[in-house]
Amino acid sequence: MSAASQARRRLDGDRLEILAFERGTATSYSACGIPYYIGGDVGDPDALITRTPEVFRRDHDIDVRTRHEVTEIDLDRGAVRVRDLERAAERWESYDRLMIATGAVPTRPDLPGSDAEGIHGVQVLDDGLAIRRDLDRAKPRTAVVVGGGYIGLEMAEALVKAGLEVSLVDGAPQPMRTLDPDMGELVAGALRGVGVALYLGEQAEGFETSGGRVIAVRTSERVLPADVVILGLGVRPNSGLAEAAGVEIGSTGGIVTDRRMRTRAEGVWAAGDCVQTRHLVSGEPVAIALGTHANKQGRVAGINLGGGYATFPGVVGTAVSKICKVEVARTGLNEREAAAAGFDSFSVVVESTTRAGYYPGTTSMKTKLIAERRSGRLLGAQIVGEENAAKRIDGLAIALWNGMTVEQMTALDLGYAPPFSPVWDPILIAARKATEQAERDAG
Amino acid sequence: MSAASQARRRLDGDRLEILAFERGTATSYSACGIPYYIGGDVGDPDALITRTPEVFRRDHDIDVRTRHEVTEIDLDRGAVRVRDLERAAERWESYDRLMIATGAVPTRPDLPGSDAEGIHGVQVLDDGLAIRRDLDRAKPRTAVVVGGGYIGLEMAEALVKAGLEVSLVDGAPQPMRTLDPDMGELVAGALRGVGVALYLGEQAEGFETSGGRVIAVRTSERVLPADVVILGLGVRPNSGLAEAAGVEIGSTGGIVTDRRMRTRAEGVWAAGDCVQTRHLVSGEPVAIALGTHANKQGRVAGINLGGGYATFPGVVGTAVSKICKVEVARTGLNEREAAAAGFDSFSVVVESTTRAGYYPGTTSMKTKLIAERRSGRLLGAQIVGEENAAKRIDGLAIALWNGMTVEQMTALDLGYAPPFSPVWDPILIAARKATEQAERDAG
Repeated sequence: MSAASQARRRLDGDRLEILAFERGTATSYSACGIPYYIGGDVGDPDALITRTPEVFRRDHDIDVRTRHEVTEIDLDRGAVRVRDLERAAERWESYDRLMIATGAVPTRPDLPGSDAEGIHGVQVLDDGLAIRRDLDRAKPRTAVVVGGGYIGLEMAEALVKAGLEVSLVDGAPQPMRTLDPDMGELVAGALRGVGVALYLGEQAEGFETSGGRVIAVRTSERVLPADVVILGLGVRPNSGLAEAAGVEIGSTGGIVTDRRMRTRAEGVWAAGDCVQTRHLVSGEPVAIALGTHANKQGRVAGINLGGGYATFPGVVGTAVSKICKVEVARTGLNEREAAAAGFDSFSVVVESTTRAGYYPGTTSMKTKLIAERRSGRLLGAQIVGEENAAKRIDGLAIALWNGMTVEQMTALDLGYAPPFSPVWDPILIAARKATEQAERDAG
Repeated sequence: MSAASQARRRLDGDRLEILAFERGTATSYSACGIPYYIGGDVGDPDALITRTPEVFRRDHDIDVRTRHEVTEIDLDRGAVRVRDLERAAERWESYDRLMIATGAVPTRPDLPGSDAEGIHGVQVLDDGLAIRRDLDRAKPRTAVVVGGGYIGLEMAEALVKAGLEVSLVDGAPQPMRTLDPDMGELVAGALRGVGVALYLGEQAEGFETSGGRVIAVRTSERVLPADVVILGLGVRPNSGLAEAAGVEIGSTGGIVTDRRMRTRAEGVWAAGDCVQTRHLVSGEPVAIALGTHANKQGRVAGINLGGGYATFPGVVGTAVSKICKVEVARTGLNEREAAAAGFDSFSVVVESTTRAGYYPGTTSMKTKLIAERRSGRLLGAQIVGEENAAKRIDGLAIALWNGMTVEQMTALDLGYAPPFSPVWDPILIAARKATEQAERDAG
């Protein structure tokens, strides 16, 4: 819908007719908001909807057809086969330009019992509504979250807030694998602190059911009672439709586009969770499902599709999350990713306050920098702290984006006043320590 | 003391003897914390002291002599004349290397009555103690703050918190002249909101006294009752001692140094509020008195003085402040400064939320970008908002530091999660609007 809106801004209805097909009932909503709806921070699920199909039709002259699923693309004919899910009818619809925004599909484990009632994914808004309905009706007492990524952790917290006894299972030795283990351990501590039982380093192997409903999760180590189960196992690009049509798919499973979001097929564009993009630090293709990338790519695709010029050069892997009182942020490559990309790297971790030490409400935070040996170039950063910690990642992401070295970063002119920062900003302290470390290594 | 500590880290006592002379009684304290001590947020003034002279002596082997004033520098002899203020004795002390860190002197108006009791500057820690003592003893009911810069506004708020009736006088038509008028007006509104009476566009012309104590401030328009007066008229580099010795002084009145903080005199270094530095956007010399610059410059001077290598390339003019509930931030050039530096610029202002619109505790903020016409290069930015607004200036300062254009900024990979940002971060929204504006201008 971002692409459609941008194209419409450039070309009016006389010059461009826009049809949009959506399998579900909603357009333009915040899937990231689902945990806050489940946890009760957001009372009305409608608050998560940015623009309804009606608004697109009325204000943007975009013919949005919900409950319509595109089942086939014919590139040669320039047409898509569309199934009207309400009427169970199908027809071919022709196009001059095609925009593919099929998003992601959640990883669902192929395990015994995984289609039982009470087992929920968290991907589309309807999933959020289904979970809420299930909590209200089935009144579950225990919940198991399978998967310790962002959405898994946010859902674990939300279920604690909703009054459930929550366990979390993850095959890795720490939650949030996008962080290094030392930083991930701080997140684990925060989860334990609000009462989430963590079962790390063990795999979910199946679900026990009774009367068609889940009653327990079987892991490699134990059986965990579960009145409700949340699957937070990540997603992969939903690129099957494009692939079947012969649109080029990359090594990540995402649709390949150029920086203007053009696929390799003439007149076909793609954006969002279904595409792969470039990681600007590793140089490798990546598929990162995040609303912020999807929105930007959609805007770029729409501008170009409408005859303008805009580019999406790639990502640096920035992500933030709040787990209980703990704010978590990361950008760039972590140590494992840096090694995989062939970088010889070193790391420093500094502990600091978020405000001047004497200022009321100051809390502590840890900042980690990963830098390339010899060049001192910043490769990645991670922050774990309390209030006012996580969004500081933006400065690090922009430094990374511009290829700064840790030594250059020691001179950065960052905002200082007691309510906002110690006189040496945490970023500066970390950059100093990394510079000193590099100097010791060199000499 | 930053310079002394850094030099000591590189050269031990056998290789470098370090003497430090300080006219006052304290070293290494947060002058920026004074308003929070006056307003009651910080109960104990000792909390503002980072390291006492004793700590420097004991842990760093630095011979700190407080209440010792250097009254003359003899570059030819390599010696300074030092006055022991306690014993009223003088002697010459020779040096191999000299570090000048004489700070700033407050601008004091040469107005009738300006030496009356109850009129205070806010520069050194002793000023803060004197104000607090005066409030406790004289129990003033009304206060007038002269000067609407950062310290003036922070002191106005502090005095309101301390229970006084506060007026603020400034010759400019808006407080906080480092912001553009449209953004400054929002700050004026916040001050009025907590009951500060603003008298803008009028000059303080004198003080009325009774029994040696101030009782009123006479402005160009009226007489304002004042049991206590705070002068917040800014500072200028305290470079007289250096100038008298023949050390080169720049057009701003600050000592001229290179990027390693070496003055033009052999073996003489300088850092802090007494030097001038380069504004990396305008390219012009500037003297900006800020603890964060002073600390960085001191560190750089000390590393170089100790035989290492470090540089301070300049500043981009970043500043943040909190006035009541309003957070204020700026970086780079404002519209007036951009014009003065010869830039043809344009501006955009966007209003956004600080978090996802549906997330509890979201507030609104305004972000202004100033960019060069044609190139689209970012020249400056200003933010006025509530909680979680101001520190976002860091990202803009780093973008500015790296010479990014507003179009490049639209692609930045900034942290997104509902507790921290709308899906389009305010910086991205502003960059988009500026890019669209530039496109319209071009075509």
